[in-house]
Amino acid sequence: MSNTFGTNFRLTTFGESHGKAIGGIIDGCPSNFSLDFDKIQAELDRRKPGKSKLTSNRKEPDAVEFLSGIFEGKTLGTPIGFLIRNKDQKSKDYGNLKDIYRPSHADYTYMAKYGIRDYRGGGRASARETVSRVVGGAIARQFLSAQNIEIFAYVSQVGDIKLEQNYNERFESDNILNCPDKEISEKMLSKIEQVKKAGDSIGGTINCVIKNIPAGLGEPVFNKFHAELSKAILGINACKGFEIGSGFQAASMLSSQHNDIFYFENNKIRTKTNNSGGVQGGITNGEDVYFKAVFKPVPTIMQEQETITTLNKSIAYKAKGRHDPCVLPRALPIVEAMAAMVSLDFLLLK
Amino acid sequence: MSNTFGTNFRLTTFGESHGKAIGGIIDGCPSNFSLDFDKIQAELDRRKPGKSKLTSNRKEPDAVEFLSGIFEGKTLGTPIGFLIRNKDQKSKDYGNLKDIYRPSHADYTYMAKYGIRDYRGGGRASARETVSRVVGGAIARQFLSAQNIEIFAYVSQVGDIKLEQNYNERFESDNILNCPDKEISEKMLSKIEQVKKAGDSIGGTINCVIKNIPAGLGEPVFNKFHAELSKAILGINACKGFEIGSGFQAASMLSSQHNDIFYFENNKIRTKTNNSGGVQGGITNGEDVYFKAVFKPVPTIMQEQETITTLNKSIAYKAKGRHDPCVLPRALPIVEAMAAMVSLDFLLLK
Amino acid sequence: MSNTFGTNFRLTTFGESHGKAIGGIIDGCPSNFSLDFDKIQAELDRRKPGKSKLTSNRKEPDAVEFLSGIFEGKTLGTPIGFLIRNKDQKSKDYGNLKDIYRPSHADYTYMAKYGIRDYRGGGRASARETVSRVVGGAIARQFLSAQNIEIFAYVSQVGDIKLEQNYNERFESDNILNCPDKEISEKMLSKIEQVKKAGDSIGGTINCVIKNIPAGLGEPVFNKFHAELSKAILGINACKGFEIGSGFQAASMLSSQHNDIFYFENNKIRTKTNNSGGVQGGITNGEDVYFKAVFKPVPTIMQEQETITTLNKSIAYKAKGRHDPCVLPRALPIVEAMAAMVSLDFLLLK
Amino acid sequence: MSNTFGTNFRLTTFGESHGKAIGGIIDGCPSNFSLDFDKIQAELDRRKPGKSKLTSNRKEPDAVEFLSGIFEGKTLGTPIGFLIRNKDQKSKDYGNLKDIYRPSHADYTYMAKYGIRDYRGGGRASARETVSRVVGGAIARQFLSAQNIEIFAYVSQVGDIKLEQNYNERFESDNILNCPDKEISEKMLSKIEQVKKAGDSIGGTINCVIKNIPAGLGEPVFNKFHAELSKAILGINACKGFEIGSGFQAASMLSSQHNDIFYFENNKIRTKTNNSGGVQGGITNGEDVYFKAVFKPVPTIMQEQETITTLNKSIAYKAKGRHDPCVLPRALPIVEAMAAMVSLDFLLLK
Repeated sequence: MSNTFGTNFRLTTFGESHGKAIGGIIDGCPSNFSLDFDKIQAELDRRKPGKSKLTSNRKEPDAVEFLSGIFEGKTLGTPIGFLIRNKDQKSKDYGNLKDIYRPSHADYTYMAKYGIRDYRGGGRASARETVSRVVGGAIARQFLSAQNIEIFAYVSQVGDIKLEQNYNERFESDNILNCPDKEISEKMLSKIEQVKKAGDSIGGTINCVIKNIPAGLGEPVFNKFHAELSKAILGINACKGFEIGSGFQAASMLSSQHNDIFYFENNKIRTKTNNSGGVQGGITNGEDVYFKAVFKPVPTIMQEQETITTLNKSIAYKAKGRHDPCVLPRALPIVEAMAAMVSLDFLLLK
Repeated sequence: MSNTFGTNFRLTTFGESHGKAIGGIIDGCPSNFSLDFDKIQAELDRRKPGKSKLTSNRKEPDAVEFLSGIFEGKTLGTPIGFLIRNKDQKSKDYGNLKDIYRPSHADYTYMAKYGIRDYRGGGRASARETVSRVVGGAIARQFLSAQNIEIFAYVSQVGDIKLEQNYNERFESDNILNCPDKEISEKMLSKIEQVKKAGDSIGGTINCVIKNIPAGLGEPVFNKFHAELSKAILGINACKGFEIGSGFQAASMLSSQHNDIFYFENNKIRTKTNNSGGVQGGITNGEDVYFKAVFKPVPTIMQEQETITTLNKSIAYKAKGRHDPCVLPRALPIVEAMAAMVSLDFLLLK
Repeated sequence: MSNTFGTNFRLTTFGESHGKAIGGIIDGCPSNFSLDFDKIQAELDRRKPGKSKLTSNRKEPDAVEFLSGIFEGKTLGTPIGFLIRNKDQKSKDYGNLKDIYRPSHADYTYMAKYGIRDYRGGGRASARETVSRVVGGAIARQFLSAQNIEIFAYVSQVGDIKLEQNYNERFESDNILNCPDKEISEKMLSKIEQVKKAGDSIGGTINCVIKNIPAGLGEPVFNKFHAELSKAILGINACKGFEIGSGFQAASMLSSQHNDIFYFENNKIRTKTNNSGGVQGGITNGEDVYFKAVFKPVPTIMQEQETITTLNKSIAYKAKGRHDPCVLPRALPIVEAMAAMVSLDFLLLK
Repeated sequence: MSNTFGTNFRLTTFGESHGKAIGGIIDGCPSNFSLDFDKIQAELDRRKPGKSKLTSNRKEPDAVEFLSGIFEGKTLGTPIGFLIRNKDQKSKDYGNLKDIYRPSHADYTYMAKYGIRDYRGGGRASARETVSRVVGGAIARQFLSAQNIEIFAYVSQVGDIKLEQNYNERFESDNILNCPDKEISEKMLSKIEQVKKAGDSIGGTINCVIKNIPAGLGEPVFNKFHAELSKAILGINACKGFEIGSGFQAASMLSSQHNDIFYFENNKIRTKTNNSGGVQGGITNGEDVYFKAVFKPVPTIMQEQETITTLNKSIAYKAKGRHDPCVLPRALPIVEAMAAMVSLDFLLLK
């Protein structure tokens, strides 16, 4: 329970937003594998704040230091300890948070659970914690790549602007939303900009595809492939829903429409459609696994809101400083990281 | 992994659809608690096939036999072993399944994973396995009831017919969909009947509410309350998606609309709206937890479909015998059971 | 925690001594393996009471019924549910136990932990629970045999009568102690008989050897091969100690005597001595794993002893009915079963 | 499995002997507890090398840096990340280890398991890893102290020199063996000195007592209190055996001698003797828990020994540099640390 993720490939994380460091331990990593450290840092850079005018301007180098488990560039099979020092902490910005519970943040629930909280920047509830997940995912995907398994995510909706189809083949993209449709992505970006100006934030959805995953992964009852994936994705801050394959559209469908017809081609069992999203009975069937996740608008806004103090008094509160008007650009590498860790975990089980 | 669910309150299950018996072991059950066995059987009866013309007419008494862990009507704290004998197996009906992979069933994926399968009635992939979950859930909810925690589920959509609002207060219902709107439920039932006549099946959604759950339950990072709930629900056969609170609607919302404003009343911290679905930062805040799940149309239909044999040859296949034109009526107690086990698991952790 | 043993090959057990049945679920069993059911029953027969005048004369057929996970004689990879009905329960014999805490039994500690207990025959604390372990072990060793891994245990001490050396090669034996030295085993048996006549019981030790286990099994830090083995063996009723290889003799040794010198022969790395007991740094080195366990005299004796009632009053107590004057003959298959499950668990991890 | 210890109070560790750092994450620590950091450092100082002429003269400040989970001196309930930088690494000393497998070290078994190893100073197999355990144990025992639970260990045997009795009451000691008998401890120390001069090392035993532990802790079947304790202690480098209470002496005892007679005094259920070692049926009974562990002589000696190279050739090998002639003085705080973590783990379960 709690701060460990995975069964065979396990990531345990620690760290508060404004503590000394964020980090973790990766255990169960196969031995004797050459890691590409530049690729790990590249993933971290994708998640980093301050890269665009549309993301928080907190300045963090987010340089990861590996402390163990690697010898002459190769994994030892022993646990990989790592940390990222928190640099741009500006804790003073957060002194005013000590005595209030911000709306739709975890301030109150942490207090209800622990009786104490590190109020600076949300403490452990801050999305800063996800840096460690990106490290774990970046390592996981190097093992997956060696098996030809690819994972990519893209923003499919921002507010009311949405893609009309799924994109399950690799595409080029030049925007921070990794959105395959140029016209729609520009609308999305201009929507986010407009929301930012209003001091507000906006929700949206992310689609993710896992390609070339072999058939036979997943446990059939409680630990279905998509059940574990769902837990992984809903464990990301601000995520409110998950669907695989046909998802919520399946509610309106007949079985005669929904069933994926099997055929055999090029020595491989395939299905004509993929409403199953690559998983049947909890186990992968060799088709693309694809899923969608929804993210709420981040609760920190530059508008005055009513709330209560830790002494249960009403108070008006308006956030100061940095914030993201839309979590989606920075959530992309986190979604991919979680999908990578789930995939590798099941692959190692096999 | 695999056939055990839960951390503190743990259910481990066994059984194939047409094997000798289905059953399980409940471990971690608090001791010295008087169980109401009639209530357990009543939950099983809700899930039982053959109760309505709209559900499979397999005849199963589904009488549970408890083998251990209970002494003079009270829990001992030791594991509760139980089993339900399979009676109406009619395995002969299934001989024709030996050599084919049915569309959108788990026949092929089991073969890919295990290299062997019990083809009779879907074996372990059959929803018959969920009987054991209902036993676990029925016991869990007795502990929850003692804490005044209530759980109820209702069908909110069948095909295109849907409820326009959420129902988070207890209501009366006299139909197998437990749908609070009489007019809509009749439309739903007539839709299912029509689908049945066509030899087809149809999808839909179920809403579920957990009331009076205390604040402070859930683990904040990977084991968020709703992340575990999502895994539990997506682990149910045919489920393709899960959302909590505002769910996929959050994609179109601004934070200024979505944030739940805190206030203090009657010595309790409350929120004015509940877009969070009772969970903030992965931890319950004391408001109702409510979620929605989507179920695909069950893949067995009385229409001819193309598929392949286990030797990879094309073949036309048409199901014979019993089937459910819509999984939702029988899924209701299973959804409640999984929600009950997740809730108790977190409650015991506290 | 608690009633589940193992990580990859997992046995979860249930059952009280005088409940309806004892049984369990084996999860994680590799699929598509033909089981020999006669061999399983043969292991159960070794553990069965009433076989000799030196063991309890409780009459139990101990016939195991498998309920799932096996199809046409082969494992499905799905959980194997099984049960053994309790037949010769004679609960009336135990009515007098309701109100007292027997010396060195678990009556009091169960009450301290659970606030309730099934006092009939010790309830879950009875060694009857080990039947389920023997089933799990009997299945595990069939997988081990297929890899040429052998496990055998023998009684090495009863009271002051002890073997002067270890026996790490297979031998023939015709006595219930499986003791390789005919002369010593006769002394042991006559000692047990004499103790039985006195209405007393006596302790002793069991040695166990795991042969042909491959190098590289075990986790190096907390889950060392011998650490898991020790936990497994000390989890058997009445066991008070465990040692591997040189064990407690290592206290008196110098490193120059104790170190096992490596050499290379027949394409295999070997050691000249085996003080390590086949494990170095927590990982097997390919030499025989051998260990010793000590069992206390079973606490039930036919002599009057002072004790207290559940109301904390002094009382004189003398056991009635059946008892074992020495646990060792029946503990042999249990020790082997636990060693087999630990070995397979690590083998599957690899 | 592997680098995580505990179920409720969990320590996950990382680090190689000559890597950048050793450290870990403590998860499941109760919140809102004031830690005494001086006491933590004091425990580390007890384990530190170079304190006495009888221990290795590696110079390590062993100063622990806490990175998270603590706010204004109090535990947050979130994971406590910590690290200890390796300073005095002298990796050059170890270059000669690259190509050989040292006798009775883990060099070969790591290679057999992982196909790669960090040969510098034993890598992860080095006892340097136990620093992290001492940090975990030092925190655990502060929670135990708050419940009045005390843990202390003492050397009870070095070579053939041994204490003739158990010491279960607190005593004063001024030697690094914490041996309560002044005369015997001097003999032990002079024995170690003599062994050191000969370039050899020697084994011995450690006794440990857990006082004031409440009745009712432990799980009755596989996770017996003493079974978990045994696993914890045998997980310490060089440990070859464990016994609780009467231990191996129970082999020679009759039940009429061994049974611990209950009586009631000062509102507490007590036993007249304590052969059980405070545990009955796997659950604590409120008496002192006491156990003994044996440690082999550390395998590094300053004498020439035969061994093989990684290319399987014979070679003569003689260690250079630093080594401990007896592991016992430095093992004392590690034994206490492991006992503390097991005790707290069970206490939190309750």
